[in-house]
Amino acid sequence: MSGHLTIALDAMGGDMGPDAVIPGAALALSKTPSLKFMIFGDESRIKPILDRYPELAASSRLIHTDSYVSSDEKPGAALRNGKKSSMRLAINAVAEKQADCVVSGGNTGALMVMAKLVLKCLPGIERPAIASLLPTMEGETVMLDLGANLECDSEMLVQFAILGSVYARVVRGHAQPTVGLLNIGSEDMKGHDEIKIAAQILNQIKFPGKYAGFIEGNDIPMGKVDVVVTDGFTGNVALKTAEGVSKLISGMLKRSLKKSPLAMLGAFLAQGALKNLKKETDPRLYNGGMFLGVDGVCVKSHGGMDHVGFANAINYAYEIAAKNFNVRVAAEIAEVMSQEKDLGLYENLSQSTSGDEESKLQEKVS
Amino acid sequence: MSGHLTIALDAMGGDMGPDAVIPGAALALSKTPSLKFMIFGDESRIKPILDRYPELAASSRLIHTDSYVSSDEKPGAALRNGKKSSMRLAINAVAEKQADCVVSGGNTGALMVMAKLVLKCLPGIERPAIASLLPTMEGETVMLDLGANLECDSEMLVQFAILGSVYARVVRGHAQPTVGLLNIGSEDMKGHDEIKIAAQILNQIKFPGKYAGFIEGNDIPMGKVDVVVTDGFTGNVALKTAEGVSKLISGMLKRSLKKSPLAMLGAFLAQGALKNLKKETDPRLYNGGMFLGVDGVCVKSHGGMDHVGFANAINYAYEIAAKNFNVRVAAEIAEVMSQEKDLGLYENLSQSTSGDEESKLQEKVS
Repeated sequence: MSGHLTIALDAMGGDMGPDAVIPGAALALSKTPSLKFMIFGDESRIKPILDRYPELAASSRLIHTDSYVSSDEKPGAALRNGKKSSMRLAINAVAEKQADCVVSGGNTGALMVMAKLVLKCLPGIERPAIASLLPTMEGETVMLDLGANLECDSEMLVQFAILGSVYARVVRGHAQPTVGLLNIGSEDMKGHDEIKIAAQILNQIKFPGKYAGFIEGNDIPMGKVDVVVTDGFTGNVALKTAEGVSKLISGMLKRSLKKSPLAMLGAFLAQGALKNLKKETDPRLYNGGMFLGVDGVCVKSHGGMDHVGFANAINYAYEIAAKNFNVRVAAEIAEVMSQEKDLGLYENLSQSTSGDEESKLQEKVS
Repeated sequence: MSGHLTIALDAMGGDMGPDAVIPGAALALSKTPSLKFMIFGDESRIKPILDRYPELAASSRLIHTDSYVSSDEKPGAALRNGKKSSMRLAINAVAEKQADCVVSGGNTGALMVMAKLVLKCLPGIERPAIASLLPTMEGETVMLDLGANLECDSEMLVQFAILGSVYARVVRGHAQPTVGLLNIGSEDMKGHDEIKIAAQILNQIKFPGKYAGFIEGNDIPMGKVDVVVTDGFTGNVALKTAEGVSKLISGMLKRSLKKSPLAMLGAFLAQGALKNLKKETDPRLYNGGMFLGVDGVCVKSHGGMDHVGFANAINYAYEIAAKNFNVRVAAEIAEVMSQEKDLGLYENLSQSTSGDEESKLQEKVS
């Protein structure tokens, strides 16, 4: 990977603000010493923390602003009122090529609308999606959308499938990633019209992945596909449920192992293995959601993360930016879009789908 | 609990058909020896298996039929063509008061439409929901809908909240169960209009539970509320994701414990605790979804379950039927509905919600 990338940080985002962001940046820097940072936010709060990390201070530029976006502000209001906010200035730095990527733990909706407005979408993409890596039995899976779009029509789902595939190729190195549409059953007749039509389209177009059909919730952690596509509401609930279950089982295990002296001795002997499991299932390890489809690398850190989680969001942004992701994605998307046009695929939809949804689609495409 | 309840079984439902249903019934009988069974299905396939369980055979009546509903049949077609199916005859037995409840591992959609047609809905309920118990850090939580209704408007979500609360009172013994609406954030502004309006209504009406606001996916396994309300698509995905994650972590744990001789020795000493964990997280333990809102006890067993899982679905149905659930639910629902009318709550909705959804609601209620 190339070095000397510059990361723009919204220091005021997330529940802990600079208390997570600055130590997190220091941790990321210790892993990748070539990193540079632009830190946006309230100097009076940031400076005292930054002073504790001289190496980070030496690699950073602190840009003061009083304004920040609060976590309960509506995206539209944040867009109007937050022009000098730490979030907005950090995004601007990417648009002005002063930084290679931006990381924020702030208000997801505000971050999305600002990123779209300032960085714009990739050609052919209407609505960006949040994509993250998840641990599975078979390694890591890309899942999107994790919360940017509450409702998604079939065309958006198809675009997410394309974006996710390109992502899996460029960042994860899969030559032809398999893509599954998340549904409540694997039979063709199952699910919403939007999903059924998206499935038909994915069966017809050539894109950088291989469409593998409908998958169900339990197939995600099994790693049945490399890319899981769903709407933002379902994806967000599924992701957070997975985190909660992981925490529940760790808690149950801990409780079980304390029930007898023999079990406690066993746990003591196996402590290396148990620590390893804890590390493997640590949600902080998988913190960082990429706004896929935006023309620039913008990563959302979970609002509740501490510095370890935030450092991983920085690592994630760095990895993507270092692979020259955006340029490669733009090229792959353009290629698929031209094929789609040639195929006239939206006119070839099977008649079995509801006419209503179909005409909506036709309208949009024509 | 009162004894001598009769359970109607669709022996042909589920991936394993009678190979899971008959041994499952035998297992349930060994736990509750007073049970009686009516077994519907293909005699030539059932009889040889039943012969292996003389006690079950003595407590059962086998009613032969050639017809059954296949797992990929559309619900409407199953309704038209399946009048002599094992599923339909088992439901009929409940309607005709020959059985106290019905259990089927067959086609969910078909089971739902048949149950609605034959058993009817409780007064005031438009659309039944599938409800199950889930293990959490705080004991067990009721979650609905788990797959009966792909899309739910605000009124349906309110009805699910009422049904779920009554269920938690009657079956789980909670005096005033807490109810959460599943969303992608806890702030008021988050989520679909349907959820926001449902939240407003639940804040205004008196019902057998206590509305506790929006919850997120991770709050489910933490046991933050006694009743989790969501639409059938999201609920189904969340449930199956939870199952998958549980399996993933067990797999990771097993792998970790095999990595070193010390860890293996530790695992050997702690095997009681590990077995206990396995038991606690066994999805078969929580098999069985009740069709809440139908006027009769109809339980769906997961299609992929073996006999242990099917036995638990029978236990679950028995527990509900034995508590005279339906009569008590009907009384509680009638009570809430009359209050709702008195309050005129659908006219009092805050103006902040979209006019469109609001007028849709008004129409329905008036």
